[in-house]
Amino acid sequence: MSRAAIAIHGGAGAIARAALSAEQEQHYLQALRDIVASGQTILAAGGSALDAVTEAVRLLEACPLFNAGKGSVFTHAGTHELDACIMDGITQDAGAVAGVSHIRHPILAARAVLEKSPHVLMIGAGAEQFAMDHGLEPVAADYFSTEARWQQLQRAQAIQQTLLDHDGAAQENAPLDNDRKLGTVGAVAIDSAGHLAAATSTGGMTNKQVGRVGDSPLPGAGCFSNGRVAVSCTGTGETFIRTQAAYDVAALMEYGGLTLPQAADRVIFEKIPALGGSGGLIAIDADGNIALPFNTEGMYRGYGWLGASPVVNIYRGS
Amino acid sequence: MSRAAIAIHGGAGAIARAALSAEQEQHYLQALRDIVASGQTILAAGGSALDAVTEAVRLLEACPLFNAGKGSVFTHAGTHELDACIMDGITQDAGAVAGVSHIRHPILAARAVLEKSPHVLMIGAGAEQFAMDHGLEPVAADYFSTEARWQQLQRAQAIQQTLLDHDGAAQENAPLDNDRKLGTVGAVAIDSAGHLAAATSTGGMTNKQVGRVGDSPLPGAGCFSNGRVAVSCTGTGETFIRTQAAYDVAALMEYGGLTLPQAADRVIFEKIPALGGSGGLIAIDADGNIALPFNTEGMYRGYGWLGASPVVNIYRGS
Repeated sequence: MSRAAIAIHGGAGAIARAALSAEQEQHYLQALRDIVASGQTILAAGGSALDAVTEAVRLLEACPLFNAGKGSVFTHAGTHELDACIMDGITQDAGAVAGVSHIRHPILAARAVLEKSPHVLMIGAGAEQFAMDHGLEPVAADYFSTEARWQQLQRAQAIQQTLLDHDGAAQENAPLDNDRKLGTVGAVAIDSAGHLAAATSTGGMTNKQVGRVGDSPLPGAGCFSNGRVAVSCTGTGETFIRTQAAYDVAALMEYGGLTLPQAADRVIFEKIPALGGSGGLIAIDADGNIALPFNTEGMYRGYGWLGASPVVNIYRGS
Repeated sequence: MSRAAIAIHGGAGAIARAALSAEQEQHYLQALRDIVASGQTILAAGGSALDAVTEAVRLLEACPLFNAGKGSVFTHAGTHELDACIMDGITQDAGAVAGVSHIRHPILAARAVLEKSPHVLMIGAGAEQFAMDHGLEPVAADYFSTEARWQQLQRAQAIQQTLLDHDGAAQENAPLDNDRKLGTVGAVAIDSAGHLAAATSTGGMTNKQVGRVGDSPLPGAGCFSNGRVAVSCTGTGETFIRTQAAYDVAALMEYGGLTLPQAADRVIFEKIPALGGSGGLIAIDADGNIALPFNTEGMYRGYGWLGASPVVNIYRGS
């Protein structure tokens, strides 16, 4: 019997060095809890896994705490370039956009590509035109900007490096270090009919070169679903592309006979570190099993089966 | 013992309905033969697999017969958008560009991303700026245009559909039907040290929407190499993305215990058709075995081990 459930993540990274108050931590945990609950509500009403992951990622994009949509990090040029992908486990069809700057919800643009286009991946101005043609909400490029992200860019440029990181609150108020955090959001779900879906969205890397695309919008790299498993990743994007991390979980299960936790652990604790990468993933299989491994100090994450309370966490060992 | 070799492809598709003269066919076969020989020369001189596939794809881009570089097809807007990817089996590192219009050799831009950037995939104007910053040759966008491709766009727009196709000579002079051909070029090689590499380049789909990106520039989809196998694909790009076709060959070998021919056949004759797709791939494993399966009527292809004459072909059964 499949069991309806949703899992989400808001990025992985290192624990902030500054001491946090319980209240500050609660701010993040509550956001995760609310978004898991929204997904559960959709599933409880008989909604599809595809609808549940779309809405969960849309809410993560709308929340400035996370590096996707509102609250996205800045490129080296002080601009925003957003990427998103969604994949339907029933058809193994996917929709994705990369390098968009004027679509309020990139995940809705990805969904439009999935449903209304023969294509899978659309980039830049062509992707934006497609989204506008299909009625998606345009925004000025500065809609995505927040003061905290701007300060993050200034710090990154001061130390002349690209930060594989994110976070929207002021630096000292985030549980995971904004300047050492791998910024992506994602959701995976299984619905009451036993169907799976996955979605991933990101604002990229602080201070990244204009035009760089990471794993988030690439089916098989940062997002994958078929009839067996749904996966969404967060981490050093280049490593997740080179290892085909999201699809690799599915391949290890289908060809290698591994269970979901075994396959997810193999990717996060062996394959990704072997190429020098770090990060985590969330995954749900066709039996409703959930895995949320990460090899960083923390990962914003949460999950909930139908009828159970959301479980949310940031650090290890819980 | 590994055995140095190179294999190339110039796209897969349906056989042209018009009868061809042996002379017309020879035009294509000779181009394939010359390019295989160029790769063999590099390998014979102790060159790396990475250098051999770079040069082979550069020559395929320079040849107007094939849909990559000079001779690329037109988008719906009458423009060109080129994509390329290269992957080094030693490091499993990759470089790729997508949606570029002003770089004479997209494969050289992909190689620059591989070697001179911490990133894997760069798109659009950012990718072009990166290439220019690294000394690559800029060209006006109409450099890529040929009369044959322009006529192909007019035919496609007349019948109001996207052609998953290509070809550079006049329609009636190509062995594979220009309007029903899957246009991509690629190369895979193993060098005398036993190292593998893969490269893929494309001009896209005739009459495609601006911003559409297919499998060619995506590591794991249209191009993949690790220490075990190198793969380059050509076909209905969206299907190759959804199935992670290039990486899937590697996964079937590593996790499923299949031989190279078994794995390559599984992808081309089972996985791709199961999602409604068509096309082919070329692959070389660490023992120097070569596979060139395709599920279309033909695929421009060639290969050669070190010291042996190039073998080239277009149709089935040879």
